[in-house]
Amino acid sequence: MGKGMTNIGIIGLGLIGGSLGLDLRSQGLNVLGVSRNPRTCEIALQQGVVDHASIHLEILTEAEIIFICTPIDKIISTVERLSSELNLDATTIITDVGSVKASIVEQCSQLWSNFVGGHPMAGTAEQGIEAAQRGLFVNRPYVLTPRETTPQESITRVEKIVQSLGSVVYLLSPQEHDQGVAWISHLPVMVSASLIDACMQENEPKIRELAQKLASSGFRDTSRVGGGNPELGVMMAQYNTKALLRSLTQYSQSLNQVINLIENENWEQLENFLQNTQEARGKFCS
Amino acid sequence: MGKGMTNIGIIGLGLIGGSLGLDLRSQGLNVLGVSRNPRTCEIALQQGVVDHASIHLEILTEAEIIFICTPIDKIISTVERLSSELNLDATTIITDVGSVKASIVEQCSQLWSNFVGGHPMAGTAEQGIEAAQRGLFVNRPYVLTPRETTPQESITRVEKIVQSLGSVVYLLSPQEHDQGVAWISHLPVMVSASLIDACMQENEPKIRELAQKLASSGFRDTSRVGGGNPELGVMMAQYNTKALLRSLTQYSQSLNQVINLIENENWEQLENFLQNTQEARGKFCS
Repeated sequence: MGKGMTNIGIIGLGLIGGSLGLDLRSQGLNVLGVSRNPRTCEIALQQGVVDHASIHLEILTEAEIIFICTPIDKIISTVERLSSELNLDATTIITDVGSVKASIVEQCSQLWSNFVGGHPMAGTAEQGIEAAQRGLFVNRPYVLTPRETTPQESITRVEKIVQSLGSVVYLLSPQEHDQGVAWISHLPVMVSASLIDACMQENEPKIRELAQKLASSGFRDTSRVGGGNPELGVMMAQYNTKALLRSLTQYSQSLNQVINLIENENWEQLENFLQNTQEARGKFCS
Repeated sequence: MGKGMTNIGIIGLGLIGGSLGLDLRSQGLNVLGVSRNPRTCEIALQQGVVDHASIHLEILTEAEIIFICTPIDKIISTVERLSSELNLDATTIITDVGSVKASIVEQCSQLWSNFVGGHPMAGTAEQGIEAAQRGLFVNRPYVLTPRETTPQESITRVEKIVQSLGSVVYLLSPQEHDQGVAWISHLPVMVSASLIDACMQENEPKIRELAQKLASSGFRDTSRVGGGNPELGVMMAQYNTKALLRSLTQYSQSLNQVINLIENENWEQLENFLQNTQEARGKFCS
């Protein structure tokens, strides 16, 4: 299995795992893929996503770096199995691509001291191995979240691979990462879902129907992420509870400020408020 | 000025007024345009938006129907001037295209009994006469909001013209209209602006900066209308205060429900909530 070649393991061959495999193979690395679904293993081999594929973790025994690309709720149990079932060399680096970090990094680092948390901010509307593509990570942020105890050598090693994908690397604490994504990813889901829920509470059927017929791009955009995958929304809340609640509390305050300004017909201050948000948005969406 | 021909007046030659002129002229109607800006009158004539243009209302003396396409805050004063300064025939119909109706319809109907409130739900990202285009209203909703006292003949007349534009006509009370647009147009602006404001309140500069760098399509869409024209946002609140506050109150309740579910780690109910919003969104965005 490629003695002398660098062996890279990937567990979970979906959009992220598959795209990672394509890019790393094109660099001449030996990519070993694991999926619990035999059909996915077949497709991965056919599409050239991996050099070897298996439904068993054992294929990863000689991997130097293992990327865990499973859903969030499988990351910790996967690290547990890797550390207990395989006789991995202590220098083996395990990294993940989960969208929340604090809870995962804390537990995984205890299970495997050579764990480096990661989060590539890349994606497409499509999911699954069929959507895997080369260059998915180019110019996209890729956050690495080491702890104080994470070996510097391992951080550097993962950083180099991530840079080779064309990503822009950010090094942050797991907590900083989680608060950052709470603001721009998890809070918008709850804000947007609440908008849809509120509109459905209109008790006059004629008005509810009218609203549905008149809804145009403004409503469509503001409600998009609130109409997304419910399991994913719950997972964000479950794994990032503290940071999300902090963001929601601040959001409530901002909303109440708007309500107060309107109740008091304080149009001048409302205009100031909206001028500030107009200007501030440019900083997020440049 | 086209005796025997139907004379249609348009006051305010921006995107809506200009597009209306193009469509009505193509039907062979005699279109008389008024803009307070002489340069806009010139462009309107050059682009074939109107047959005659003037900065003076007097040009409209023989119009059978007058569309007021000015910003919301100029509609009432324009009707006032039309009724007091011109010697209009009592059968002349005045209609407007303002995005809120209750306050405008009430006052304008007192000034001119033959007033029919209207709101075409059409637009583009571009503004002004340069953006005027044929067919802007095709397949778009166009709400008419008569009162009980509005002459049926006048409603029918405006309805026929609106249908000739290819619009889908909705007949509603001004209050029903205002509550409908509060839900799908005005509430989203306040919800979205509060999101931007909340993110700016993060007091850790490193996290605020990170959030700005990581923001992707989810944040971009949810924050779009909150980063829009501040004057327009204030006008929505000013002219639709009651309905908007009613929507904001319900929104607060929906948001608090989400916060409570997360605080209590009630993941099952949160999933129900998000399943409902996912399903409900389809009714608004089909």
